[in-house]
Amino acid sequence: MPFEDIGFAKLDHHRAVRCGFPEVIYCLGKTPAQVAELFDRSAATGLNVLATRASAEVFAAVTARQPHAEYSDIARTITLRHTESERVGGTIAIVSAGTSDMPVAEEARITAEVMDQRTEVFYDVGVAGIHRLLAQSEALQRANVAVVVAGMEGALASVVGGLVACPVIAVPTSTGYGASFGGLSALLAMLNSCASGVSVVNIDNGFGAGYTAAMINKRCVASTDGG
Amino acid sequence: MPFEDIGFAKLDHHRAVRCGFPEVIYCLGKTPAQVAELFDRSAATGLNVLATRASAEVFAAVTARQPHAEYSDIARTITLRHTESERVGGTIAIVSAGTSDMPVAEEARITAEVMDQRTEVFYDVGVAGIHRLLAQSEALQRANVAVVVAGMEGALASVVGGLVACPVIAVPTSTGYGASFGGLSALLAMLNSCASGVSVVNIDNGFGAGYTAAMINKRCVASTDGG
Amino acid sequence: MPFEDIGFAKLDHHRAVRCGFPEVIYCLGKTPAQVAELFDRSAATGLNVLATRASAEVFAAVTARQPHAEYSDIARTITLRHTESERVGGTIAIVSAGTSDMPVAEEARITAEVMDQRTEVFYDVGVAGIHRLLAQSEALQRANVAVVVAGMEGALASVVGGLVACPVIAVPTSTGYGASFGGLSALLAMLNSCASGVSVVNIDNGFGAGYTAAMINKRCVASTDGG
Amino acid sequence: MPFEDIGFAKLDHHRAVRCGFPEVIYCLGKTPAQVAELFDRSAATGLNVLATRASAEVFAAVTARQPHAEYSDIARTITLRHTESERVGGTIAIVSAGTSDMPVAEEARITAEVMDQRTEVFYDVGVAGIHRLLAQSEALQRANVAVVVAGMEGALASVVGGLVACPVIAVPTSTGYGASFGGLSALLAMLNSCASGVSVVNIDNGFGAGYTAAMINKRCVASTDGG
Amino acid sequence: MPFEDIGFAKLDHHRAVRCGFPEVIYCLGKTPAQVAELFDRSAATGLNVLATRASAEVFAAVTARQPHAEYSDIARTITLRHTESERVGGTIAIVSAGTSDMPVAEEARITAEVMDQRTEVFYDVGVAGIHRLLAQSEALQRANVAVVVAGMEGALASVVGGLVACPVIAVPTSTGYGASFGGLSALLAMLNSCASGVSVVNIDNGFGAGYTAAMINKRCVASTDGG
Amino acid sequence: MPFEDIGFAKLDHHRAVRCGFPEVIYCLGKTPAQVAELFDRSAATGLNVLATRASAEVFAAVTARQPHAEYSDIARTITLRHTESERVGGTIAIVSAGTSDMPVAEEARITAEVMDQRTEVFYDVGVAGIHRLLAQSEALQRANVAVVVAGMEGALASVVGGLVACPVIAVPTSTGYGASFGGLSALLAMLNSCASGVSVVNIDNGFGAGYTAAMINKRCVASTDGG
Amino acid sequence: MPFEDIGFAKLDHHRAVRCGFPEVIYCLGKTPAQVAELFDRSAATGLNVLATRASAEVFAAVTARQPHAEYSDIARTITLRHTESERVGGTIAIVSAGTSDMPVAEEARITAEVMDQRTEVFYDVGVAGIHRLLAQSEALQRANVAVVVAGMEGALASVVGGLVACPVIAVPTSTGYGASFGGLSALLAMLNSCASGVSVVNIDNGFGAGYTAAMINKRCVASTDGG
Amino acid sequence: MPFEDIGFAKLDHHRAVRCGFPEVIYCLGKTPAQVAELFDRSAATGLNVLATRASAEVFAAVTARQPHAEYSDIARTITLRHTESERVGGTIAIVSAGTSDMPVAEEARITAEVMDQRTEVFYDVGVAGIHRLLAQSEALQRANVAVVVAGMEGALASVVGGLVACPVIAVPTSTGYGASFGGLSALLAMLNSCASGVSVVNIDNGFGAGYTAAMINKRCVASTDGG
Repeated sequence: MPFEDIGFAKLDHHRAVRCGFPEVIYCLGKTPAQVAELFDRSAATGLNVLATRASAEVFAAVTARQPHAEYSDIARTITLRHTESERVGGTIAIVSAGTSDMPVAEEARITAEVMDQRTEVFYDVGVAGIHRLLAQSEALQRANVAVVVAGMEGALASVVGGLVACPVIAVPTSTGYGASFGGLSALLAMLNSCASGVSVVNIDNGFGAGYTAAMINKRCVASTDGG
Repeated sequence: MPFEDIGFAKLDHHRAVRCGFPEVIYCLGKTPAQVAELFDRSAATGLNVLATRASAEVFAAVTARQPHAEYSDIARTITLRHTESERVGGTIAIVSAGTSDMPVAEEARITAEVMDQRTEVFYDVGVAGIHRLLAQSEALQRANVAVVVAGMEGALASVVGGLVACPVIAVPTSTGYGASFGGLSALLAMLNSCASGVSVVNIDNGFGAGYTAAMINKRCVASTDGG
Repeated sequence: MPFEDIGFAKLDHHRAVRCGFPEVIYCLGKTPAQVAELFDRSAATGLNVLATRASAEVFAAVTARQPHAEYSDIARTITLRHTESERVGGTIAIVSAGTSDMPVAEEARITAEVMDQRTEVFYDVGVAGIHRLLAQSEALQRANVAVVVAGMEGALASVVGGLVACPVIAVPTSTGYGASFGGLSALLAMLNSCASGVSVVNIDNGFGAGYTAAMINKRCVASTDGG
Repeated sequence: MPFEDIGFAKLDHHRAVRCGFPEVIYCLGKTPAQVAELFDRSAATGLNVLATRASAEVFAAVTARQPHAEYSDIARTITLRHTESERVGGTIAIVSAGTSDMPVAEEARITAEVMDQRTEVFYDVGVAGIHRLLAQSEALQRANVAVVVAGMEGALASVVGGLVACPVIAVPTSTGYGASFGGLSALLAMLNSCASGVSVVNIDNGFGAGYTAAMINKRCVASTDGG
Repeated sequence: MPFEDIGFAKLDHHRAVRCGFPEVIYCLGKTPAQVAELFDRSAATGLNVLATRASAEVFAAVTARQPHAEYSDIARTITLRHTESERVGGTIAIVSAGTSDMPVAEEARITAEVMDQRTEVFYDVGVAGIHRLLAQSEALQRANVAVVVAGMEGALASVVGGLVACPVIAVPTSTGYGASFGGLSALLAMLNSCASGVSVVNIDNGFGAGYTAAMINKRCVASTDGG
Repeated sequence: MPFEDIGFAKLDHHRAVRCGFPEVIYCLGKTPAQVAELFDRSAATGLNVLATRASAEVFAAVTARQPHAEYSDIARTITLRHTESERVGGTIAIVSAGTSDMPVAEEARITAEVMDQRTEVFYDVGVAGIHRLLAQSEALQRANVAVVVAGMEGALASVVGGLVACPVIAVPTSTGYGASFGGLSALLAMLNSCASGVSVVNIDNGFGAGYTAAMINKRCVASTDGG
Repeated sequence: MPFEDIGFAKLDHHRAVRCGFPEVIYCLGKTPAQVAELFDRSAATGLNVLATRASAEVFAAVTARQPHAEYSDIARTITLRHTESERVGGTIAIVSAGTSDMPVAEEARITAEVMDQRTEVFYDVGVAGIHRLLAQSEALQRANVAVVVAGMEGALASVVGGLVACPVIAVPTSTGYGASFGGLSALLAMLNSCASGVSVVNIDNGFGAGYTAAMINKRCVASTDGG
Repeated sequence: MPFEDIGFAKLDHHRAVRCGFPEVIYCLGKTPAQVAELFDRSAATGLNVLATRASAEVFAAVTARQPHAEYSDIARTITLRHTESERVGGTIAIVSAGTSDMPVAEEARITAEVMDQRTEVFYDVGVAGIHRLLAQSEALQRANVAVVVAGMEGALASVVGGLVACPVIAVPTSTGYGASFGGLSALLAMLNSCASGVSVVNIDNGFGAGYTAAMINKRCVASTDGG
């Protein structure tokens, strides 16, 4: 059965086979009851489940049926891990510029981990005090892929891109005001990065970056063999 | 010596060590003589050399000194391969929507190949006749990473993203007119892809996509072990 | 009497003659009392009545005077059908990408039905799992006109446009975040569709799409003779 | 055989079956030789052929092989009609605001005619002298569908939309300067039309409007039975 | 004394001499107490006083000190007329497209009247039912200047501009949704009007239009001598 | 006969009656032959004729038939004055910021004069050296209406608006580079003028400003009676 | 120790050495507890402390630990001055256009003062009544650097720039409505200033302007020796 | 005599007194003859003269009258230095990201030098190879003010801003393609810099940055006393 029609949605059960991971539940524009229903059906497949952009109210509806589901306040994700798969191989570096970029960085980290990948975080290392980043450059070099999260002028993606040999997934955030135009400044900056190997996802799309990074990392041999 | 100052430029000789590939020469805004000089110095390292956005006039200047350099009319690249490294492991799929997207797709393909990666092309498979794409979905599944090149509404990235288990690097092109606003329509569409695992590079940046794809592919085990 | 002046508005009574359907009441920027007054006067013509963008409060004011009026929570429409006209001839396909596009899709469906046209819905068939759409392509072929509702990258309009022989009315929705810029990404994508036969209405304008589709369908012979 | 691969393109031969008309050749970004090749293969199907955005140079290449092909200087189209199909049924009104909108209007007219539909033109009837339009309103009422072509403020689409009972396909043009921003002003105006039944295609997309109008008209009974 | 410094503001007492009308009080960004203070000092000059964008709370503060001040709920203006000057000469036509444009139209009307000019209103005469406007064209011809208020596609300004011999001050409004982008669509349309004699003020700036119209009208001889 | 159909255009002969001045010929998008034809027919009415955006080549075609037509190199206008009407009453001030704004300012001046109005020019008085403007403030006060032409930041409109009691028609120009975005910066600045009585026309639309100013001035009593 | 890692942030203690002033605390996106913690650690260095964009709730958390901290309601800053350094040398002029620009101007003033610089304020001197500004031009000439704060059309920066011999730091504000687009109009105007010596900071960034002005002023000799 | 009227321009002779440097000649939109005339009159004052955006043709006209004038091919400036003033005190650092930013950087350098300031250049030190910049950080620290020139993502301004204690004047350049939108990406990035002390001039405005830097530097004591 390639998909299941439950009225307000058509569940793509075939997706895990085709794409390697089940459909993720995006909570915006869905009622708590709808999310809970979708979460239940996903949980029934025996695979890990992830819901993003979930409010506390949505989590309440989900946890009523799935008591093992976990909520992250800061990332606004709900996760259910059936079995803690052994995480092997290389790591994904999650790098962020400032404290206010942390919700997006955490969404990326949790997404990668629910897909059974190992992560290492490097937070608050924005370019205004670049020694904080340079102090970690050896650790950064160990990653198979780096997720770089930054708002405002988004310069961190280019600087990291110039320091490492692995692909960089850049996530612009809506952090900032005025001429940041809701993240547009960081988005354009990242798209125009002078460093090679930087690709970009939507503003505040920590999920998309974590997902792409996980896709890359799971195909990699251990980082000691990489590069 | 981490870099060499030749007046109009500071060559980053350390880059191959740090990032796994030497600096690529971006020809726009440089004179033929400047490009030829930079090409020479890069060639002297014994590594493969790539120059992008090169006019025929620039190639003439380069080839006068480097007779083994090759030019692609359509992609406007100059390449020099010292030794044809054995290309092993998985492949990179290069997918494009229409005939006018071919220059960008070719730039991606040539970039990946000069970095010693194997590619497979799927051209003119835009969504208006989706059976052309679906006919190739098995072949697509074999890739470790897919580069998807499309202008206008850029829908191809989402459709491919929904068919494969590997990361998709989407390249919007400036193909189109009117409300495509020089590629903005495809860029926004790709950033908002409903398929997971799609990340985006700048408009017409075939080089960036090929480079990122090569970075990913070289870390992968053969595709039969992937996913 | 071509129009009637009731102070805050000039009712265009001539419109049903000239355009085939009476003026529709757009509720935004009008008080409940004003809508109720306009609804009453429209009802007095003996034709079907439609009000869009109606809050529950507005419906309360209307229903106090017109107890047969019906409200759709999800589409935020108020309708009054005097006589259930026999719906004959072909159908209008209402196709939507995701659950959160449903309010707009429902506004289109209800608009077409209050204009006495038959509809068939195809919801949650976005391109990330394209087999859900392809599974319905025969059914889609039966329609005289298709309304396609999608947010984010709006790719569904192009894919449907490439599958059918009838005109497609595309409705971008404001579903999404970040670089969707309130529906701009889907709007631009749809305007740049590589499929022929796609025309576009305003963001979230389910009404406009349903109305245009009804105009087309009512002039068509039964779909078995179409194409 | 659903499609034919000729190297630089994959011809979608199945399209005429699926969508009711063969693939149209969009000449921008293709060499004269490529267009001539595609034109030849399309002509071999025995169906009418249309190429848009064709320069005189492209036409020279086409006509060398297809002496019966015809060129429109103003619309920049190449057409080949195998048999003059009898044009029956209703008409398509082609309405334009000013002299400089004529190339786009003509592209729409020729597209509709190569698809065997009847057209009637109403040119230079912009709203600054609205009596010119009103003088034709009876004639306009006879159409099954109207294509309205206007640049600058694009007001004509709304005015026509308020006068007729048939759907209006609005085409913004890039006519104008300054704050017309290449047709953006007319595009936005048409998308926000206060008249119901107006849908919009890309800036300067006369082809798209003519195509959509033809799709609608061919499904219609004669206009005397419409409305 | 050309201006008076009261701490949070420097009152431009010289303005009435220089520009023919005292400073108008723009209430946004000022506290009720600040507005009341400014209103008092303006009233002390013995000239008429106008405050715009005033909330009910601001009016409460003003009226406590100036019991003769009047408030318009719909236009959100506070006015104080010392002596009802005899309004002589020609009139200003205030034309609006729809019911939701009325607050802006009323702000224009009240502004012109507090500047001792005569006005005549033509409301809800949008172009979707153009006979409503044409029915008033003789009355419109009598005006010395017309203020045209419209949102959405803003077409009304061009149509009126083509009907009259007097200057048209066009006011785009933020009425609409989606691609109206907060009034941008109407603004661009009005700036690109194909009718001569149309000039434009800021989105929702009824005050500016009323003020400019008053400036024009007070210099005119009676309309019977105009044109 | 309200209009005359000459194939590529419908001449609005009724316009002089309705709007007080015949149709002006906008040359862009018309061939020299078309302009010459339109010019001839306009000249035959015995009224003054104006063509804007005319190249030297267009003028050659016109002057072959109308030897009394005059061309302005800088404003790119062609004018034909049948009888030098006595210019009476007040004046129109034409104010410009810099030397590169002169073509637009001249288009405004010539337009106003062909409509039989008196003008006075104040050129190169931009705000960076504001004493140049202040030195002329008494002369400025004499005008019935001021046209202010400025590019870049467009500040001149606000400064003039604060100095005079007459309406200001502001014309943004495309003078500038970078973030002037083709005149957008000046356009937005003028629309947001803090001075009352400023209305705005399209970027580089000297004609529109001159036309509007003439409409205003011809209704005015002599300036000594104004204000 | 160049920086200190406190979990949610990495404090850049080296900054005061490198850049001459400690890190400033930007409160948006941080909890009151986080700000209080950061404020404490900054205070412990014995240098002056500044927090911007602070709500009253944040101040409550800070003052609980640092009773000498001071709050500005209007500028929303928290400051702590350890020792009132003697302010010597020249002054910074803080110039603002209108009452609603005062919060941004005050943020600039407080920032400069916490960095031990002298300031002089010139508020409500917008260009619509330019005599208010000109009356102060001698005083303005005394400054070593001027901060000019204006919304709407932002013309004040150009006018001041033309009057003084010192650098001008222009701050666009989000004051305004409609086509001010949240401060974009003032931003573009200031970037396109025709006066030399004007540089610009982000919309509403009073802090950045005050900081830059302080950097400049502290390097200056007393103003009597300047210019 | 505060200004001189020479027909097409009003020379602001008072400017050198008021602002410390004579008017600079901006050549765009002026004829060679006009520039030569203005250059002559400026030279007659005995002060240094600067013309920007000058073509070789313009230089030919100038040099015919002023044989000592010098031309920079790359910066497109014409300069005339009457007496080589002794350059004393601190220096201005001119920092640029890539080879194609050099024309703008050179315009800044030449401007500062014609204003008698000392400069030190740091070219091709973009962030993709950040060790090139860090290698010069001690030298950078010596400057009183830094001009940072960068296109694409403009990250260099933030990185430099975080390394130095002096103000940074950031100049975005139009270097780049696609989503750089003619320099918009770098402009927005620089306006949103996370480093304090960065202010921004217009895209490609090397002159403005050099001018502002000179204004700052001439007021500074030698850098050893700075900071």
